[in-house]
Amino acid sequence: MANLLRAAATWGLFPWRGYCSRGTQGELSKGFVEALKAVVGSSHVSTAVAVRQQHGHDESMHRCQPPDAVVWPQNVEQVSQLAALCYSQGVPIIPFGTGTGLEGGVCAVQGGVCINLTHMDKILELNREDFSVVVEPGVTHKALNTHLRDSGLWFPVDPGADASLCGMVATGASGTNAVRYGTMRENVLNLEVVLPGGELLHTAGLGRHFRKSAAGYNLTGLFVGSEGTLGLITAATLRLHPAPEATVVATCAFPSVQAAVDSTVHILQAAVPVARIEFLDDVTMDACNKHSQLNCSVAPTLFLEFHGSEQVLAEQLQRAEEITQDNGAFHFSSAKEAEERSRLWAARHSAWYAVLALRPGYKGYSTDVCVPISRLPEILVQTKEDLKAQGLTGAILGHVGDGNFHCLLLVDPEDPEELHRVMAFSELLGRRALALHGTCTGEHGIGLGKRQLLQEENSSASAQNCRGLACLPLGLSLAAAGGQLP
Amino acid sequence: MANLLRAAATWGLFPWRGYCSRGTQGELSKGFVEALKAVVGSSHVSTAVAVRQQHGHDESMHRCQPPDAVVWPQNVEQVSQLAALCYSQGVPIIPFGTGTGLEGGVCAVQGGVCINLTHMDKILELNREDFSVVVEPGVTHKALNTHLRDSGLWFPVDPGADASLCGMVATGASGTNAVRYGTMRENVLNLEVVLPGGELLHTAGLGRHFRKSAAGYNLTGLFVGSEGTLGLITAATLRLHPAPEATVVATCAFPSVQAAVDSTVHILQAAVPVARIEFLDDVTMDACNKHSQLNCSVAPTLFLEFHGSEQVLAEQLQRAEEITQDNGAFHFSSAKEAEERSRLWAARHSAWYAVLALRPGYKGYSTDVCVPISRLPEILVQTKEDLKAQGLTGAILGHVGDGNFHCLLLVDPEDPEELHRVMAFSELLGRRALALHGTCTGEHGIGLGKRQLLQEENSSASAQNCRGLACLPLGLSLAAAGGQLP
Repeated sequence: MANLLRAAATWGLFPWRGYCSRGTQGELSKGFVEALKAVVGSSHVSTAVAVRQQHGHDESMHRCQPPDAVVWPQNVEQVSQLAALCYSQGVPIIPFGTGTGLEGGVCAVQGGVCINLTHMDKILELNREDFSVVVEPGVTHKALNTHLRDSGLWFPVDPGADASLCGMVATGASGTNAVRYGTMRENVLNLEVVLPGGELLHTAGLGRHFRKSAAGYNLTGLFVGSEGTLGLITAATLRLHPAPEATVVATCAFPSVQAAVDSTVHILQAAVPVARIEFLDDVTMDACNKHSQLNCSVAPTLFLEFHGSEQVLAEQLQRAEEITQDNGAFHFSSAKEAEERSRLWAARHSAWYAVLALRPGYKGYSTDVCVPISRLPEILVQTKEDLKAQGLTGAILGHVGDGNFHCLLLVDPEDPEELHRVMAFSELLGRRALALHGTCTGEHGIGLGKRQLLQEENSSASAQNCRGLACLPLGLSLAAAGGQLP
Repeated sequence: MANLLRAAATWGLFPWRGYCSRGTQGELSKGFVEALKAVVGSSHVSTAVAVRQQHGHDESMHRCQPPDAVVWPQNVEQVSQLAALCYSQGVPIIPFGTGTGLEGGVCAVQGGVCINLTHMDKILELNREDFSVVVEPGVTHKALNTHLRDSGLWFPVDPGADASLCGMVATGASGTNAVRYGTMRENVLNLEVVLPGGELLHTAGLGRHFRKSAAGYNLTGLFVGSEGTLGLITAATLRLHPAPEATVVATCAFPSVQAAVDSTVHILQAAVPVARIEFLDDVTMDACNKHSQLNCSVAPTLFLEFHGSEQVLAEQLQRAEEITQDNGAFHFSSAKEAEERSRLWAARHSAWYAVLALRPGYKGYSTDVCVPISRLPEILVQTKEDLKAQGLTGAILGHVGDGNFHCLLLVDPEDPEELHRVMAFSELLGRRALALHGTCTGEHGIGLGKRQLLQEENSSASAQNCRGLACLPLGLSLAAAGGQLP
């Protein structure tokens, strides 16, 4: 039991997903590639360099590590056969969705077969009265919400990129709406999973889509955020929410980070059911002003969104304005019209590109720590100081209602010394978050770059009081494979 | 991996919790009892018959099966030593909280040591700004809310009985507020657990109380609802919510079950953020009228509660009334005053005793299925017909917003034939729920009585379409120990 949990907490339990002890990396045998073709058809297998390279990286800076082959199964039966084939031969399997991850989770660190699931893109079942939907792995959250447009329902989890929903399950995604609607953890009802040996598992039982249950272990929850280490997700039953009747957006500028965070805590304490509450620092606001033609103050800023009836919105807006003014906000403005709302959120969602535009030719690297909300001001101030001390260009923005923020760092790809400073900064920030009772990843996941931090997060080596007992050192033996800098 | 999940889904993986292969049941050796006393002190160990019998049952009808000894550890170090001692000798361990469970989870089916955790009853840490609290296992949800009274925060999960919070974690409890605030699954941030060998595990890392994370497997979620099979929960970090500014309660009578359920679906679709929406059938209402001096219609009825500001409440109430009237409701009344609200909820929470009072001397047995909301009308109508056909007295009430309902059956304890009919009815109802994509337990858990149904819930033997593939038969090998009728 202890061994199980120890291994489980470090991804070390199931060596089939990219950490297979297949000996040395090398090309697949001709016979094996033929066997793949026999399963999915010749046209759905590729060993072309360009295709493999395209599947060897995500949107992060982790170095491209291409798989030996890419296959496109058309249905779950084929996924099952592919898994059984690879597993029986000790060939690593790498599930692939939209490739929009940020932690290198798709890098084929020991080669193997990349299973691209995007051809399975049907919405299998919509249960309007039960607020649930069943999707195949190729369906993205935008495609789902387009499909739902006239149903009065929507799926609120939105990580920014138009990621596939099953990829979002695998990485435990969240995003701007999580403060009100929860993350993927709270919005997955059931999963169809192909296990390494090819067997099919329904985590909450076949076809079930009940709202709650106390029946046995929460296997659905175990797969959410397991990053492809436990199986291939071939269908997800998701919880839907009623579409908001009306929406209003507000922006609010503050004299300090502390004032913005205090406002956030007070808004939450006042039970104002804010749908989004996003923090953008002065650097981000400056970049957004330039990139998205905004005319906002260059100061710590909150973007807020409220969902409800017209009457309820007016009250929520008024209370939020009062609270922010009590905390010294010097500008509060709101937008009801869809066009103006879209313009503001487009600016927020383009913040990554706006910051990149500050230094043309540079690449971006995003951190992703999350701390208890009360510790946000101190870590944000420290982070600003660290950036200055390290001579780095970084912008801070975050899902402040959850205590989760990102630091977007700009790196000259031709400057290994700067890259090294960025990596050192990122590790320092991760350790700062851990020291403040936080986590090294709020929503991007562990992937390749945070395995050491995961170990520390679960470690007993912490200086904190452990009630006098030796704690289980969860982070014992990370798979040695694939350690690398991006 | 497949073996792991197969075993995990049937409680069969970890044989230490009441299912230990210790050979025949028998008394503990004198030396072992002395060893227990050496850990916790003589005054905190009992082998007295009366004490053991008191710990051999919960509030269900499962027959009392006393442990061989009861111990009261005073701190986590003692719990750790007790676990190591028992585990090393192959003696089953049974964690015990308030004994308010409803599925026989505390019955010592193979004897062993009952670890009563109620002496550990401190509230260790309250983080107001972070909306979190750390409690020891003896703290009940009422004690916590009393402690929180002046903090502006509360813990909403309320299973009815004044259960211990760590017991509620272990059983995955929910109750009347779950439709808005979620069940224990959504409200536990971290757990301190003593594993069978005595090692200490912090499921989200030592001292951490962040709001969200994507770091590694969700071990916290794995322990919620694991019913004591994975470890002894010695502390829980819980998510708190802002206390509602104002509260209003409404009751509403309907001409049919269908009308009540349709109203529920429409209220949820309209995004009215109802805090509670409880269904009581005509039998329950009749019993409540008599027992709690209500003067309500004897008809299918909804009890609703709304939380918010005065202005918001007025709007929510108006919308709910419009929706229920559109569905043919013939009575809608609301109560703002604390006294009248308390009277109504006291009546709801006393429904169990009100129904018992219908046939003095009889005992009560509660079912606990949960189905997709759209299937509620048909299963409720079928259940009513089954009751009639079986000549049973049963009242129906439920957390209709979640699709979860209970049938309270009255049994003459002197009539084995009636007891048999009640058990047969309960199994039939469980299977009806499974056939409608539901679960055999919405919130009471598996315990002793539902192990067969759990197997069927996860089984591939279902008649439903399995997308052409052989599914993993999760329910393979239930522990043979302790099969019994209540």
